[in-house]
Amino acid sequence: MRSAIPEPVTTLIEAFSRLPGVGPKTASRLTYYLLRAPDDFSLGLAQALNNLKAQTRFCSVCFNITVADPCFICSSSERDAGTLAVVEEPLDLMAIERTGIYKGRYHVLHGAISPVDGIGPDDLKIRELVARVEKEQAGEVIIATNPGMEGDATAMYLQRELASTPVRVTRLARGLPTGGDLEYVDSVTLMRALEGRSEL
Amino acid sequence: MRSAIPEPVTTLIEAFSRLPGVGPKTASRLTYYLLRAPDDFSLGLAQALNNLKAQTRFCSVCFNITVADPCFICSSSERDAGTLAVVEEPLDLMAIERTGIYKGRYHVLHGAISPVDGIGPDDLKIRELVARVEKEQAGEVIIATNPGMEGDATAMYLQRELASTPVRVTRLARGLPTGGDLEYVDSVTLMRALEGRSEL
Repeated sequence: MRSAIPEPVTTLIEAFSRLPGVGPKTASRLTYYLLRAPDDFSLGLAQALNNLKAQTRFCSVCFNITVADPCFICSSSERDAGTLAVVEEPLDLMAIERTGIYKGRYHVLHGAISPVDGIGPDDLKIRELVARVEKEQAGEVIIATNPGMEGDATAMYLQRELASTPVRVTRLARGLPTGGDLEYVDSVTLMRALEGRSEL
Repeated sequence: MRSAIPEPVTTLIEAFSRLPGVGPKTASRLTYYLLRAPDDFSLGLAQALNNLKAQTRFCSVCFNITVADPCFICSSSERDAGTLAVVEEPLDLMAIERTGIYKGRYHVLHGAISPVDGIGPDDLKIRELVARVEKEQAGEVIIATNPGMEGDATAMYLQRELASTPVRVTRLARGLPTGGDLEYVDSVTLMRALEGRSEL
């Protein structure tokens, strides 16, 4: 008896269901919550969704999400233009910014190489990175792709692509996460921590 | 360094965060997912949100969500007008509809009495229910509020309010959920199942 549910309600439930991690039950719950909430709640969310794409773009230099182009990091004279951290996604950039210790600039690839998902080097901002490194004569590229199979594959590809330039290519350290418990650490992480051990 | 995130992005993250069960991490994830998805994904969701309130209303008879007023259940001649199932929310109505065995009509209270949340009888469609029972000369009111403290309080209140009318007031049975395991059933449920035991 799906017909008991009016069409505008099912449409929104279906729209919510298409979001990652939102199943039909959560989608219903959100929709019925909005039905009971004041009008400007759902209208505000609708407005924010409309503005998201209309008011943002990719920075033409680093491909981070931005309103002004170039973005405030690329246009800041306080950031070291000679160092580029290469990340997969804008959220990874935010994570590095939150540490507060990185003073260089960024390059957002918008993904990682993943043959399974049909994502090759040409689908990422890799050509743009190589061109940028050559043009800006960067001193160091810190590869900050995710510590997994796809991030590793991407890192290896980048290393090869940048080999023809004089830039120094580094990668974030791998090892035990702070606050973790050796007993619960997976063996790949432990292996990496052993390989990367340092003198005390 | 929150300033690394453009305003339209933070606005949507905040709008998502206000939804129940959506924390700041999920809100970010949804927002960045939409940033990468095709434009019509976020625009479609925005449109569905705009239509939700604009195209729906409460049925003036039973207060279910509907496009046409009265709703298709209230206007159907195939539904028994003499029996009213009283539910807290439209989703509860859908749940009963899904059983496919209920042929009566509904009355949606839009909540339950909850002194903790400051929700009293006047905040619910209780006065409308009593007036409707009197006007339609209903034969039976099945109280289908949730089997919890607030649903129980609401049921007791309704019973008292309807005592002055000749209507028969019943409530959904309480007991063991089908497929459940006695070992894992909470003691209140088990107590109710004992109290409500029937001859075989």
